[in-house]
Amino acid sequence: MRNLCMKVSYEGTNYNGFQTQPDGITVQDRLEQAIKSLTGEELKIIASGRTDSGVHAYGQVFNFTTSSIIPVERWCMALNTRLPQDIIVRDAIEVPLSFHARRAAKRKTYLYTINANQFIDVFQRRTQYHHTSRLNTAAMEEGLKHLIGTYDFSSFASKNSTKPSHIRTLYDAYMVVDQSMCRPNTRDQGVIHTYLTGSGFLQHMVRIIMGTLLEVGEGKKNADDIPIILNSLDRSKAGPTAEGKGLTLCSVEYSDL
Amino acid sequence: MRNLCMKVSYEGTNYNGFQTQPDGITVQDRLEQAIKSLTGEELKIIASGRTDSGVHAYGQVFNFTTSSIIPVERWCMALNTRLPQDIIVRDAIEVPLSFHARRAAKRKTYLYTINANQFIDVFQRRTQYHHTSRLNTAAMEEGLKHLIGTYDFSSFASKNSTKPSHIRTLYDAYMVVDQSMCRPNTRDQGVIHTYLTGSGFLQHMVRIIMGTLLEVGEGKKNADDIPIILNSLDRSKAGPTAEGKGLTLCSVEYSDL
Repeated sequence: MRNLCMKVSYEGTNYNGFQTQPDGITVQDRLEQAIKSLTGEELKIIASGRTDSGVHAYGQVFNFTTSSIIPVERWCMALNTRLPQDIIVRDAIEVPLSFHARRAAKRKTYLYTINANQFIDVFQRRTQYHHTSRLNTAAMEEGLKHLIGTYDFSSFASKNSTKPSHIRTLYDAYMVVDQSMCRPNTRDQGVIHTYLTGSGFLQHMVRIIMGTLLEVGEGKKNADDIPIILNSLDRSKAGPTAEGKGLTLCSVEYSDL
Repeated sequence: MRNLCMKVSYEGTNYNGFQTQPDGITVQDRLEQAIKSLTGEELKIIASGRTDSGVHAYGQVFNFTTSSIIPVERWCMALNTRLPQDIIVRDAIEVPLSFHARRAAKRKTYLYTINANQFIDVFQRRTQYHHTSRLNTAAMEEGLKHLIGTYDFSSFASKNSTKPSHIRTLYDAYMVVDQSMCRPNTRDQGVIHTYLTGSGFLQHMVRIIMGTLLEVGEGKKNADDIPIILNSLDRSKAGPTAEGKGLTLCSVEYSDL
């Protein structure tokens, strides 16, 4: 048996999330179908973590053990010809049999994109959350910076989270506002890209952080409320869960790959 | 009556081109339906030019005369609520009654995008032509430069062209190769963006130029063949018509707007 580790990009629009569900087609289903079509094996892949319905990935990572003797450099092409156009396997390497894509993940980086221009961008509309009312992005970034560090993020986790510990480390978090598409003399505010790198993320964590920061941007909350919300360990103190379509899992880092 | 001029973005994937056709739904159909829904008027809009099936636009321009008294600043929002998500009217101004979006157009800029990486980009796949075999981009750009100037572009026009003259001026043309998405130690060559600005473009002109440059990139033709092809005034000497999905009409310029 060999253990293969792969990087996959997907546009999540048409999927019921990454992980196999009782209802709907998931990215995992499609990947496992492609592997079965290639090798005949009915197997379960292990991803670095699940992504929610409608969430995208640039560099999701998964592994699986196979008895196939297909050389590792042939796998990407062989799987891609068996996958729909919104899922692309970009890299494949052989790893030690002990490697586990979820347990071995050391850091993940997510991107959340808010289009704060008056009209949607027709070309990026599937990966941008559109928000037209006035946003104070400086206050949003100030609020975001309060979350960098090691904390119990219970306030920013789904109430359905079953994790034994909600302590996570956010290593870095920053915003980039792209105003290149703004029309002069309009209320266009640009496209706000928020990058978050952490040791791991709880269910809905990035989306709840973003929903809360949007309330800061709108003036409903202050940047200084963020540490208070964090310390409360109370989900109801944070803002709503922002829409999944704006979220992309950019990369997963491993110390031993 | 007032003459209104608007800028529109569209992702052309789901349309049978811009201009109304006997078969299939076009962008023009959708815009005229939205206007009818808003004002009750059955009218024909005038665009800067047609775009082919599957071709996109960032800043297509059109105009029409209306007896509606809706203030000009309300039109974008009012039309966008009546348009599908892949068509967005981004600007509306009132212009003199004599203004005609096709006749008054002075310059147009097109972008053709070739993804020359091994695998498609799932997020940009609808607007990129995917080409994996080795391309000599320096030779392609050298060939492209031969086309800058005022020439009879008959070799680069559809045989179906009914224009009385095929003389056009290409003011500027250049390539930008984005290698930010290239994976190390692979055959990834980057994403090649080709910008062309001209006085006007004949039917299929950008796509035939790109199809010919792709043959230069593949080594089937030389950069120095381009002036020979141009001088031949013979469509059959040029390369094939490149796929429409890679083409975007970026902007249309008017001297008097």
